[in-house]
Amino acid sequence: MYQFLSPSVQHTLDLIGIFVFAISGALLAVRKNFDVFGIAVLAEVTALGGGLFRDLIIGAVPPAAFTDFGYFVTPLFAALLVFFLHPHVERIQTGVNVFDAAGLGLFCVAGTTKAYEYGLGLTQSAALGLATAVGGGVLRDVLANEVPSLLRWDRDLYAVPAMVGATMVVVCLHYDALTPAASALAAVTAFVLRLLAMRYHWRAPRAWNRRSTVREE
Amino acid sequence: MYQFLSPSVQHTLDLIGIFVFAISGALLAVRKNFDVFGIAVLAEVTALGGGLFRDLIIGAVPPAAFTDFGYFVTPLFAALLVFFLHPHVERIQTGVNVFDAAGLGLFCVAGTTKAYEYGLGLTQSAALGLATAVGGGVLRDVLANEVPSLLRWDRDLYAVPAMVGATMVVVCLHYDALTPAASALAAVTAFVLRLLAMRYHWRAPRAWNRRSTVREE
Amino acid sequence: MYQFLSPSVQHTLDLIGIFVFAISGALLAVRKNFDVFGIAVLAEVTALGGGLFRDLIIGAVPPAAFTDFGYFVTPLFAALLVFFLHPHVERIQTGVNVFDAAGLGLFCVAGTTKAYEYGLGLTQSAALGLATAVGGGVLRDVLANEVPSLLRWDRDLYAVPAMVGATMVVVCLHYDALTPAASALAAVTAFVLRLLAMRYHWRAPRAWNRRSTVREE
Repeated sequence: MYQFLSPSVQHTLDLIGIFVFAISGALLAVRKNFDVFGIAVLAEVTALGGGLFRDLIIGAVPPAAFTDFGYFVTPLFAALLVFFLHPHVERIQTGVNVFDAAGLGLFCVAGTTKAYEYGLGLTQSAALGLATAVGGGVLRDVLANEVPSLLRWDRDLYAVPAMVGATMVVVCLHYDALTPAASALAAVTAFVLRLLAMRYHWRAPRAWNRRSTVREE
Repeated sequence: MYQFLSPSVQHTLDLIGIFVFAISGALLAVRKNFDVFGIAVLAEVTALGGGLFRDLIIGAVPPAAFTDFGYFVTPLFAALLVFFLHPHVERIQTGVNVFDAAGLGLFCVAGTTKAYEYGLGLTQSAALGLATAVGGGVLRDVLANEVPSLLRWDRDLYAVPAMVGATMVVVCLHYDALTPAASALAAVTAFVLRLLAMRYHWRAPRAWNRRSTVREE
Repeated sequence: MYQFLSPSVQHTLDLIGIFVFAISGALLAVRKNFDVFGIAVLAEVTALGGGLFRDLIIGAVPPAAFTDFGYFVTPLFAALLVFFLHPHVERIQTGVNVFDAAGLGLFCVAGTTKAYEYGLGLTQSAALGLATAVGGGVLRDVLANEVPSLLRWDRDLYAVPAMVGATMVVVCLHYDALTPAASALAAVTAFVLRLLAMRYHWRAPRAWNRRSTVREE
């Protein structure tokens, strides 16, 4: 009912999102000098971590990551690709970023919708949709022993586009108007906002009076 | 039945505990130079992480953090407050520490009680109560890419007061004597012990023969 | 039915695996200069983390770690032992490594079998068995604020032996031939492979062209 596309189209979009998130995890693993298994692990965690968290929260066990074979295998393909071609993949980093932005848009909409279907309130559904979209990247950075780029002030806006997309979904849900077109619009809005944030280096402010203080890290 | 205060009083106390834990998360985010969203995320995680872990373990899904609107919104207020007023909040760090100690006392009692209500054994209930009280702080430090202050030998005792409070609760549960007064006494004991630990810099020992060894970090 | 040994023998083996994993966690805590509570926490997390993750995924709540008293108490004994005797425990590091390899073999078989019993597919069961075997160590390293040794290219193979063991189990499950002997063989194979990997310093390759690049960490 809240599905914004036919199941098979939705599934294909999910796999694309999983694939590009996995690419970003595998690339970080290469940069951190991990071995081939480390690359595979980081690809899996980045691609599936957000959805896994969402499914544990709403009680959808076993999570989709462990029941859908395609979800599980796709990150391994991404890891293999990066393993053999990583200088080329790095060179097309811009392309990867565009796909990652697409994944962000798709996941925040799908995550919000699934959370609502499982009975969460509107605000909580939006929060969980946001967590679905960004959770994998946070886990990726924690495992790589880095400060999550989501939290850093010197990275272009990442959470805000997903927040906007998730908010559009819950507003539509509130008015019982989540048509496929509305869902697609929400995903596209998040996608475009993320592209603009990257293009114009939009950043979020740090705490007041912080700009002039000393300890930069 | 094991509720040690009326539901609305309990809820208010929960919100106070959530608020002060969120303050500690937001302050660390400011110190780590995170942007406004990083501050909000760290506030949410610190305030709700411990209870979230407990609810996942006992199968109380969706967790209270995602069903109670007040639980979700309170950390955002704390984040806003820190965002605009953080030099003042830091100046009143002592006050924050006192509230944090109060949160520790309340959460270890509430966590232990809820775990027992869901059928865990006495020892396990106490362990989960402890995890409820300290889990948010551990997640906060992991996300900030620091060694959890809970684990460090050079910080004042934090886990022990919560352990004592949780143990008092399960002893009462064992003798079927968990009156509201007993629960309150357990929370106050943990609270006071934590205050004393901060005042007199009580610390736990490191491993034998460790004091003289080389590698300090 | 898929139990490869009598319940009490299985339980004893579980406790041995938990004990040696706890030793490895406690030793890292000593090296990181944690206090006695940090040692206990890291022992618990290392020993029970993998199984906890598995149980949350398959929906077996409360997890075995919180229902079996022996599972909970064993890591505390290990922590105490390390606390008082850690120079001696470090001196017998080789012995610890052998036991840890045994734990790896036992946990990958037990984890895969339990996941399958809860209805996961064959591939997913093997993946979850692997996660059961290695998850505790990953959590240990994350809490200690280190890059998980599982992911590092400069450590001897750890995941591969567990992968082989888990794969043997699911192949047997596929042909409905998981006899106790087959399960034992899978565990022993993983155990021996890990011993060989340590003895001959088997390592996994890093990404192509990576060997000559600059940033080592």
